[in-house]
Amino acid sequence: MAKSSALANNMGVDYVLVYRFATTDKATAEARFEELVHRLASVGLATEVRNGENHSLLVFTRVASEEHMFGEIYRSRVKDWIHGVRPAQPAKEVRISLEQEPLTEAERFRIIYQLITNPQSEGGAGITPKKGEWENIESLFALHDHVYNKEWIKKWTTQWLLTPEDLDDIRNRLGEKIAFYFAFTQSYFTFLLFPAGMGLFSWLFLGHFSSIYAVVVSLWCVVFVEYWKHQEHDLSIRWGVRGVSSIETKRHEFKAATETTDPVTGEKIQVYPDLQRLQRQALQIPFAIACVLVLGTLIATCFGIEVFISEVYDGPSKSLLVFLPTVILTTVMPLLSGMLTTAATRLTDYENYGTESQYERALTSKIFVLNFITSYLPVFLTAFVYVPFGSLIVPYLDIFSLTVRPFAEHEKQLKAPNPAQFTINPARLRKQVIYFTVTAQIVGFAMEVIVPYLKRQGFIKIKQMQSNRAKKAGGIAPSAAAEDPPEEKEFLARVRSEAELDVYDVYADLREMVVQYGYLALFSVVWPLVPVSFLINNWVELRADAVKICVEMQRPTPWRADTIGPWLDALAFLTWLGSITMAALVYLFSNDGLGPDGVPSDIKGWGILLSILFAEHIHLGVRWAVAHAISKIDSPGRQKARRDRYMTREKYYKESLDQTHRLPPISEKGEEITRRSLEEEARQGSMNTANPEEKFWARQRNWREAAQIGKGLIERAVPDEKEMAAEKKEL
Amino acid sequence: MAKSSALANNMGVDYVLVYRFATTDKATAEARFEELVHRLASVGLATEVRNGENHSLLVFTRVASEEHMFGEIYRSRVKDWIHGVRPAQPAKEVRISLEQEPLTEAERFRIIYQLITNPQSEGGAGITPKKGEWENIESLFALHDHVYNKEWIKKWTTQWLLTPEDLDDIRNRLGEKIAFYFAFTQSYFTFLLFPAGMGLFSWLFLGHFSSIYAVVVSLWCVVFVEYWKHQEHDLSIRWGVRGVSSIETKRHEFKAATETTDPVTGEKIQVYPDLQRLQRQALQIPFAIACVLVLGTLIATCFGIEVFISEVYDGPSKSLLVFLPTVILTTVMPLLSGMLTTAATRLTDYENYGTESQYERALTSKIFVLNFITSYLPVFLTAFVYVPFGSLIVPYLDIFSLTVRPFAEHEKQLKAPNPAQFTINPARLRKQVIYFTVTAQIVGFAMEVIVPYLKRQGFIKIKQMQSNRAKKAGGIAPSAAAEDPPEEKEFLARVRSEAELDVYDVYADLREMVVQYGYLALFSVVWPLVPVSFLINNWVELRADAVKICVEMQRPTPWRADTIGPWLDALAFLTWLGSITMAALVYLFSNDGLGPDGVPSDIKGWGILLSILFAEHIHLGVRWAVAHAISKIDSPGRQKARRDRYMTREKYYKESLDQTHRLPPISEKGEEITRRSLEEEARQGSMNTANPEEKFWARQRNWREAAQIGKGLIERAVPDEKEMAAEKKEL
Repeated sequence: MAKSSALANNMGVDYVLVYRFATTDKATAEARFEELVHRLASVGLATEVRNGENHSLLVFTRVASEEHMFGEIYRSRVKDWIHGVRPAQPAKEVRISLEQEPLTEAERFRIIYQLITNPQSEGGAGITPKKGEWENIESLFALHDHVYNKEWIKKWTTQWLLTPEDLDDIRNRLGEKIAFYFAFTQSYFTFLLFPAGMGLFSWLFLGHFSSIYAVVVSLWCVVFVEYWKHQEHDLSIRWGVRGVSSIETKRHEFKAATETTDPVTGEKIQVYPDLQRLQRQALQIPFAIACVLVLGTLIATCFGIEVFISEVYDGPSKSLLVFLPTVILTTVMPLLSGMLTTAATRLTDYENYGTESQYERALTSKIFVLNFITSYLPVFLTAFVYVPFGSLIVPYLDIFSLTVRPFAEHEKQLKAPNPAQFTINPARLRKQVIYFTVTAQIVGFAMEVIVPYLKRQGFIKIKQMQSNRAKKAGGIAPSAAAEDPPEEKEFLARVRSEAELDVYDVYADLREMVVQYGYLALFSVVWPLVPVSFLINNWVELRADAVKICVEMQRPTPWRADTIGPWLDALAFLTWLGSITMAALVYLFSNDGLGPDGVPSDIKGWGILLSILFAEHIHLGVRWAVAHAISKIDSPGRQKARRDRYMTREKYYKESLDQTHRLPPISEKGEEITRRSLEEEARQGSMNTANPEEKFWARQRNWREAAQIGKGLIERAVPDEKEMAAEKKEL
Repeated sequence: MAKSSALANNMGVDYVLVYRFATTDKATAEARFEELVHRLASVGLATEVRNGENHSLLVFTRVASEEHMFGEIYRSRVKDWIHGVRPAQPAKEVRISLEQEPLTEAERFRIIYQLITNPQSEGGAGITPKKGEWENIESLFALHDHVYNKEWIKKWTTQWLLTPEDLDDIRNRLGEKIAFYFAFTQSYFTFLLFPAGMGLFSWLFLGHFSSIYAVVVSLWCVVFVEYWKHQEHDLSIRWGVRGVSSIETKRHEFKAATETTDPVTGEKIQVYPDLQRLQRQALQIPFAIACVLVLGTLIATCFGIEVFISEVYDGPSKSLLVFLPTVILTTVMPLLSGMLTTAATRLTDYENYGTESQYERALTSKIFVLNFITSYLPVFLTAFVYVPFGSLIVPYLDIFSLTVRPFAEHEKQLKAPNPAQFTINPARLRKQVIYFTVTAQIVGFAMEVIVPYLKRQGFIKIKQMQSNRAKKAGGIAPSAAAEDPPEEKEFLARVRSEAELDVYDVYADLREMVVQYGYLALFSVVWPLVPVSFLINNWVELRADAVKICVEMQRPTPWRADTIGPWLDALAFLTWLGSITMAALVYLFSNDGLGPDGVPSDIKGWGILLSILFAEHIHLGVRWAVAHAISKIDSPGRQKARRDRYMTREKYYKESLDQTHRLPPISEKGEEITRRSLEEEARQGSMNTANPEEKFWARQRNWREAAQIGKGLIERAVPDEKEMAAEKKEL
């Protein structure tokens, strides 16, 4: 691709805007472009424009006016301070503030991004890519720092474990939101060592469906989730972003119902009544039901077909037909998922959220419902429908004979030989779990890393063929690179290829991790080597994700976050559900769950309910205890907060105490009053107009007199008692 | 008692210390007293000493030096600011700070209390009543403001509902901790209107053990607890004490294991390892078991005796003997409770907590266990042991025949006539609940209000008799009042009587309220008029508590708090337990739970478990939903916080934006650079040492040039595509 010199040098460019005018008429496109460049200049950014691919222009920007930049830094730090993200007010003089806390690279890019996208009323250029009048701006990205990327990949691929400094490094480069993803995955990876060891031990020595393993792993899940909450809190303090989710900017798509004046602050605010939104949110219930029905039917159907073919059908092409349900699933599922995802996005738009984080949270919870069904429902069906009730259901599976009728030679092959003789396949569950936790992971990895690579190689080949063909056709090939100055050729070629890359969505990777965690929490008692498989997968995943960001994605905008967001709720939910599921599985399969005829004979309704009740309450109790214990652990972040607080207090306290200690003690004051007001007292006493209060306080003028009189009272009190007692005796 | 003039005038006294020297030898007593008065003077408090009852001295203090007081005000407000209780730094000049936020009466008393009790290293006098070298100081209290008290009582007894202004009034006078109790009880009272109406309706029209009633009341419980959490938060913002529980002062009795230097802040801290404390805390489990065994055995025994006597025994004195278990309970129970309470206090001391709030929380949870057993176990026994399994147990109750053997005439009266004919008394449960919720409340009220009144009247009579007898005996009665100056006689008599009063413990009243709430949440489905009874009781209770504070207790020290503390956890626990208990009760008694022979015949194990599981999960779901909905409600406190934040931000933003808008737009700057550096560029171009970066940025010097070139690119791009297509067509 581009030579190493072009890779090494970013030409001092801060951001690149891709301005695509393919679908706009010339005049509008030119007018908007002029406005764009003007706006950028008005916030102190210098611009250069070059030609881009396929009717687009590349606009390069960099900071030319320090004052504008400093203004934005100051406003950003003030906003942090107001919302409690920073403990102390930022220095008015920004240079001093920068000396105390220099900009990290991520912060610098974020500030410039804010300069470009903030509304003009807040000091920005008001350029919102892809929205409204700026719909021509296809993307806004910073260029990769390839030198650093190379070092980064090299370092990680040769290192077994990541250190906190590595995470700090990511935070300084890519921002906190992505850094939290890596921190979470690294935490998860390190924690997996324990259940991996436990799983190995259990697989070798303990039997199938060992309750010891189930208890230990459930405990581990609780400890891990609570530990991560603690770690997240600590990292957010360490990275100075605690509370950043309260700093929210309004979404552009937010349509207010009314505009009112806030009675408290007097500012005009856009309002969308919560009650109306609640009505719209109520649509989530039919949506969830629709998901369950649509996807559930598909999965149950394929499941039924699969059971029928593999266990009832006995005719030609059986080994091929076994793959029929897989084929159906892999073709139909993405279609349905895609449709439902679009429906989810439309619904979330309809719910009209005010801020980006609310929108993200709502969309994530809907997608999680989808993922939950597609990932876990098959295993639930096998474990809780097929095994307990298999022999009851098999006779009804005749309807699936339709699918194989063309292949069967005679009717007999389509009927179950004898329903009473049907024995369930006990290994089905285990095979399914192994498929999901090993095979599917490998396939997913391949899809994530290898397919995009092939795609890009393919496109490059296609482009080469196109330009060759154009040359052969004899016409000039008006490529975008035609007008490049020679010394910029490599650089611009690289920028153009970066402009074609995808935008990185960290939530997609987080979703992967959370779904994987779900398998561990819900079903790992079926096959104890699940954590081992995940351990290996995650080691590779961390590095593969780093490579993906460097090579296949545009450089991400360094968003800030103080949590992995709605995925933490998903983790807690999966852990809770896991405690119930593992208990039920262990109870159902405690002796491999088979009676003499394949019908589980000793499953009692109250037995299941009792074990579920028991397991769930123990889970809640353990969670409370673990959270309590972990909150006691000190950590660098908390220490930092304590130190800041102590230092500030020390300063003010010392001043005040010094002042107080320098005050003259009251005794001398008292004596002063004595000397000065002796005459006054005499005068007042004669006038007899002193109020009772003054008289009360005048009897002992200072503490020495009070001490004297007190001692006298003590002296006189004690003998009196004795005298009284003596007198009494005499009488 | 004292005449109205003495009641009206407090002589400007701020605090009264009672210095009792009865058990100390004279020399030590006198030395300590001198030290006491000296210390008070050193923090700017003037002192007056008078004689007190029974070998005690009354030391009156008031603020004499404004600077000391101001110093303490400043330090206290700085401490609040550091810990995030105050949003803004207090003004250095305390007079300005006081103009902006004048002292409430409660704050003033608290500041003076801090002046007296804070360690000398923090600017106080270091006088800790009843501890260490100050064990002679029996109490430290402020004098009642009788004028205000009278108005207060009059106002409340003639008002049906309390307003938020009333609560603010209490907060200004008595401090936030007590104000929260009244706010909670008022909230509870207002909320009780709904279940009272529901209960009346249910008692009249719905049957016994109505599931509708159970569901509605459980829902109400959840809504109430969540609403109170929200209200508490809001009040704490309104009263400016949010987060005050993080400001903690070390307990005097805290014995550190080691003293280390905090690596973070460099200050010396006393450390008691958490692990060691955890071991000591583990003793709570045997303690709880001991409580359950001891009290449980007593209650179960009395229960058995009662069942035996009222339903099996049939001989003389039956009507009297029915009271035997009540007698046993009322005599033995307080004994055992007292022993266990002492054990709880000793254990909490042993656990060696660092701060007062931790100590209080730990002690409260232990006492709550005691209360839970003594208040609810009898009803649990009746509902879940007697009714379902009564006929199984009755034959074993023969052992209780021992208690009545002396009275029985012949053996036949002691045996159950025919175990199979034994029918449980279905009204027992209801009678028991009525007893606890009506009778016990009335008795409790009497104990709380009437008995202390009689006690004090009795003491006054005894004192009068004593002094009469002493006079008759002829000796001088060396009463404390002997040496009083005439104009102070009434005042001092009043102070002496106030010194004899008890100290108000708000947690005792809170405990009452929470235990009462428990009956509502757990058992009200048995007798739906429970909330009606509580409604009436609480209206009276609020006023009776106000009277109690004014008349029977010393004026309380105005502690601050931002929550009702551990009682909130108790409320949540009772609500959760209530959802389970009500579901179980409804299931058990859905047809009054009786089969043909008194044996509940249709209780299924799985039925109970399922209903419990169901009810509990619905409870958790509802709680989450309610909390979510309530958090959306805006409130004055949150509005205030929003306004403060907005005002501060406006100020800083405006300044920064103004500065930014005054900056010259970059175009002129760019032109400047153009003019100045044309020669430079020429020179550099000829030298050919310009680096690629500068060259890159030099091509379009300002935004107008960039706009020009960009427009050109747009122009040229569009026709080319069309030409290419046209060319292709021709080929």
